[in-house]
Amino acid sequence: MNATATPRGRVSLVGAGPGDPELMTRKAWACLMQAELVLVDELVDRRILAELPAHTRVLQVGKRGGCASTEQGFIHALMIRSARQGLRVVRLKGGDPFIFGRGGEEMDALQAAGIEVEVINGLSAGLAGPSSVGISVTDRRCAPGVALVTGHNGEGGRAPDWAALARSGLTLVVYMGVSRCAGIVAALMEGGLAASTPVAVISAAHTEQQREAFGVLALLPALLASEGLGSPAVLVIGEVAAMAEARNFLNDSARAERQAQASGSR
Amino acid sequence: MNATATPRGRVSLVGAGPGDPELMTRKAWACLMQAELVLVDELVDRRILAELPAHTRVLQVGKRGGCASTEQGFIHALMIRSARQGLRVVRLKGGDPFIFGRGGEEMDALQAAGIEVEVINGLSAGLAGPSSVGISVTDRRCAPGVALVTGHNGEGGRAPDWAALARSGLTLVVYMGVSRCAGIVAALMEGGLAASTPVAVISAAHTEQQREAFGVLALLPALLASEGLGSPAVLVIGEVAAMAEARNFLNDSARAERQAQASGSR
Repeated sequence: MNATATPRGRVSLVGAGPGDPELMTRKAWACLMQAELVLVDELVDRRILAELPAHTRVLQVGKRGGCASTEQGFIHALMIRSARQGLRVVRLKGGDPFIFGRGGEEMDALQAAGIEVEVINGLSAGLAGPSSVGISVTDRRCAPGVALVTGHNGEGGRAPDWAALARSGLTLVVYMGVSRCAGIVAALMEGGLAASTPVAVISAAHTEQQREAFGVLALLPALLASEGLGSPAVLVIGEVAAMAEARNFLNDSARAERQAQASGSR
Repeated sequence: MNATATPRGRVSLVGAGPGDPELMTRKAWACLMQAELVLVDELVDRRILAELPAHTRVLQVGKRGGCASTEQGFIHALMIRSARQGLRVVRLKGGDPFIFGRGGEEMDALQAAGIEVEVINGLSAGLAGPSSVGISVTDRRCAPGVALVTGHNGEGGRAPDWAALARSGLTLVVYMGVSRCAGIVAALMEGGLAASTPVAVISAAHTEQQREAFGVLALLPALLASEGLGSPAVLVIGEVAAMAEARNFLNDSARAERQAQASGSR
């Protein structure tokens, strides 16, 4: 391993990836195994925590029931204090710390306090989730790119211009969009996106609870309700969703054919 | 390790990540170490190939000098033939196979031939590159999300609607945009994006050749020319670029102060 030991008194903002511990990077894994204190978000898969050495101190700092800004300040203070005590601190976040993870705010708070900080990226669910069901979000036959947007713009965040996104030609991947799905769908259709645009929903990607569903834009709220798909989930909106549905079908056919050949039934 | 052995006669489309071998996922690394044949793109970092077992067969299938569609067909045929011979085949791509990587097309060709195929994601340079210089592309204080788009839409690909992207409010990350930078900048400014919009360029992120530069949108072509920044590079367009520039300055100040304290000069 080329990974160098994390110096004491430093904070590492580490991406835990989408769930499966094998989907963390080698660098993130090595850093986590050396940590003396790990501050964990709720979205981090329990299988990862189960592999920590017994002596590692783990604190759950997931946000429950509002009062988010106070809690974020508390997390900053805890990281700063622990680093000043000389601990190797890992701030472990589901996905990537810099993709809808408040990693920028935490980096600013740490740097303002004179604490050394590094970022170790992780796979974000908005890209690894679609892949798990065969969706290539930037397939050049469908789209010139992908927009990763949040459906949740509370707490002073800026809202995306949904009409502009509808016209962009890009595949749209919406994080935290389940509860506001009806409004997002309405805004995209007002912006000119066809009611028949293919969609997919991937819930809890790469975890043992993963589920997915395919449909069309206008019926997305109904699809979520009928399938009982809840957060955390990503919504994928664009032609790529239909290509993947066809691909999964082909995959199933190929598998059935191989099994039939193996059992000598044809 | 929980990684199961890759069965023979299967093709794995594997993301090599942005460069540093430590930034590959544990699953990708385990799969690569078991490969019998590795088909490698040009953008894969040489440090990764240097770690392959001596007996692994490696074929460079990078695209040089046009005639791209024929070559893509050749790669498909080679993967299919090798898998039918019972080999464990890894198709290793820089970044992520499903982010501007033609992974979708290769998956389709393999499935159509009845070959079992899996995708193992990697970190894409468009997200890991900005992180390496302190840019959180989805920082909620600046933007509700990020658009990953290609600046290269030859070979029948669809072009993005740059005017719509200019209005979207999203951070823009442009892949393969160096050679068409002037046209992209003009289209974004015609679409309403301010000439003073902060930008950053990260070239060869997470490799030993990494370089970066910061500036403003209108002067982006001049910045690329004066800094001599070439492909592979990602362009980052949006307020997040300025936040990172300030952050790097803070970081430098904190580092200088610590060094001064350590040497007893204050």
